[in-house]
Amino acid sequence: MEAFIWPVRVFYEDTDVGGLVYYANYLKYLERGRTEWLRSLGVGQSELKKELQLIFVVRSVQIDYKKPALLDDQLEIVTRVSDCRGASLVFEQTVRRAAPAEAELCRAVVKIACLHSESLRPQPIPDKIKLELEDVG
Amino acid sequence: MEAFIWPVRVFYEDTDVGGLVYYANYLKYLERGRTEWLRSLGVGQSELKKELQLIFVVRSVQIDYKKPALLDDQLEIVTRVSDCRGASLVFEQTVRRAAPAEAELCRAVVKIACLHSESLRPQPIPDKIKLELEDVG
Amino acid sequence: MEAFIWPVRVFYEDTDVGGLVYYANYLKYLERGRTEWLRSLGVGQSELKKELQLIFVVRSVQIDYKKPALLDDQLEIVTRVSDCRGASLVFEQTVRRAAPAEAELCRAVVKIACLHSESLRPQPIPDKIKLELEDVG
Amino acid sequence: MEAFIWPVRVFYEDTDVGGLVYYANYLKYLERGRTEWLRSLGVGQSELKKELQLIFVVRSVQIDYKKPALLDDQLEIVTRVSDCRGASLVFEQTVRRAAPAEAELCRAVVKIACLHSESLRPQPIPDKIKLELEDVG
Repeated sequence: MEAFIWPVRVFYEDTDVGGLVYYANYLKYLERGRTEWLRSLGVGQSELKKELQLIFVVRSVQIDYKKPALLDDQLEIVTRVSDCRGASLVFEQTVRRAAPAEAELCRAVVKIACLHSESLRPQPIPDKIKLELEDVG
Repeated sequence: MEAFIWPVRVFYEDTDVGGLVYYANYLKYLERGRTEWLRSLGVGQSELKKELQLIFVVRSVQIDYKKPALLDDQLEIVTRVSDCRGASLVFEQTVRRAAPAEAELCRAVVKIACLHSESLRPQPIPDKIKLELEDVG
Repeated sequence: MEAFIWPVRVFYEDTDVGGLVYYANYLKYLERGRTEWLRSLGVGQSELKKELQLIFVVRSVQIDYKKPALLDDQLEIVTRVSDCRGASLVFEQTVRRAAPAEAELCRAVVKIACLHSESLRPQPIPDKIKLELEDVG
Repeated sequence: MEAFIWPVRVFYEDTDVGGLVYYANYLKYLERGRTEWLRSLGVGQSELKKELQLIFVVRSVQIDYKKPALLDDQLEIVTRVSDCRGASLVFEQTVRRAAPAEAELCRAVVKIACLHSESLRPQPIPDKIKLELEDVG
């Protein structure tokens, strides 16, 4: 799987009094990256829920903050799937500055589970996604 | 109706790079005030939805920002109902600093509608709330 | 001045348990619209602060919520300046669904003041912005 | 060091359309816990910045989400320092439901660095904090 790249601009809402992007807000950026990767496969999460009663929930996040992002920065969220088996997906994601240089600002591993939206029981990852990831493992 | 007062502390998450509380976040504070006022009447919004299929939605907000709140400030959210008829409630709310002085930081009028959670049609305000407000309007 | 249009996608981060976009988050969308309008004039707010010690702060918001935005919606933030004099700018902004129909979801009037970033005293709106708005008022 | 416990109520602002607390928002809760632990030692972060030019930044987070928190839940943020040396602090934090049962909802390890607010260079953890933690590491 090639990396999927999604652009994000830093707005006032993302920053804090320290002058940097607030640490929890990188998790919002990462989710935008995963959501747009799914959308690029033709998978919308609201349809997934309505039609198949499937939701994705985050099981764990390991994130390392290396350099801060600042107001007005143009960022790129880089998303790769490193594992896909049974009901779970593992994403490796980075946030980097688009310009002037491609400095890596943070790096994360995010584990996702696919659940039934009512019972909250694990469900197999939909084929549409699995097929896309066939080479991954 | 006496004013209902709810304490709020300003954390990093609430601030922005300008050094002040981000303007949208006062709306979060105001909602905490309204929610805790309801809770003080014995009305929980998750029960309201489950048992009576009722939800409250905001119809309009008029908010004036007078002085900024800062990191670590201890605030008070002051909540009054100024009107209650049919399916709607009007709140007058202020945010003030608890100490050292009781400076008023912002002032808002918030109009709320009571809706059926599925049809999204207007529903009468529940009696439990109306009775509490009998003197208001 | 022609309306300035900025696209916004609704992500999980924007929604609440009611299934709709949380009411405070529209204020984030409105600010993205204003910020990108400024950027389209060549005015970046971090440069404005660094070079001219100028910041924009919100003085008041009047917002009417008409229809809810939902997860995955593609929205457009429509931004117009309706007044610009002395140290203040008045914006008229709407949020509408980009597709399938252009339904107007909310409508806001936002008053902004231009302040010195240290003294917090009112400062004239920079010429670069005023010239752009010459026809406005 | 004994665990420091800070109560948090789940409001609408914290939830998402899935009906649960949005995954990034637990990081806000964790920070409230760390901030209030510091405040309980007499250390305010705005004074720390003004008087000693010190800021704390998050270097990494490892968080496991076990059970979801829901609207209206009353939570407890449990904060312990597991290591303190040089310019860094390691926190072990959990989020649990206060009632009816003390179910653990998530568990995190958060690494913090103490930096000079201008140069962003590592600075020794202030003595006031170290002394409190003498038994830790």
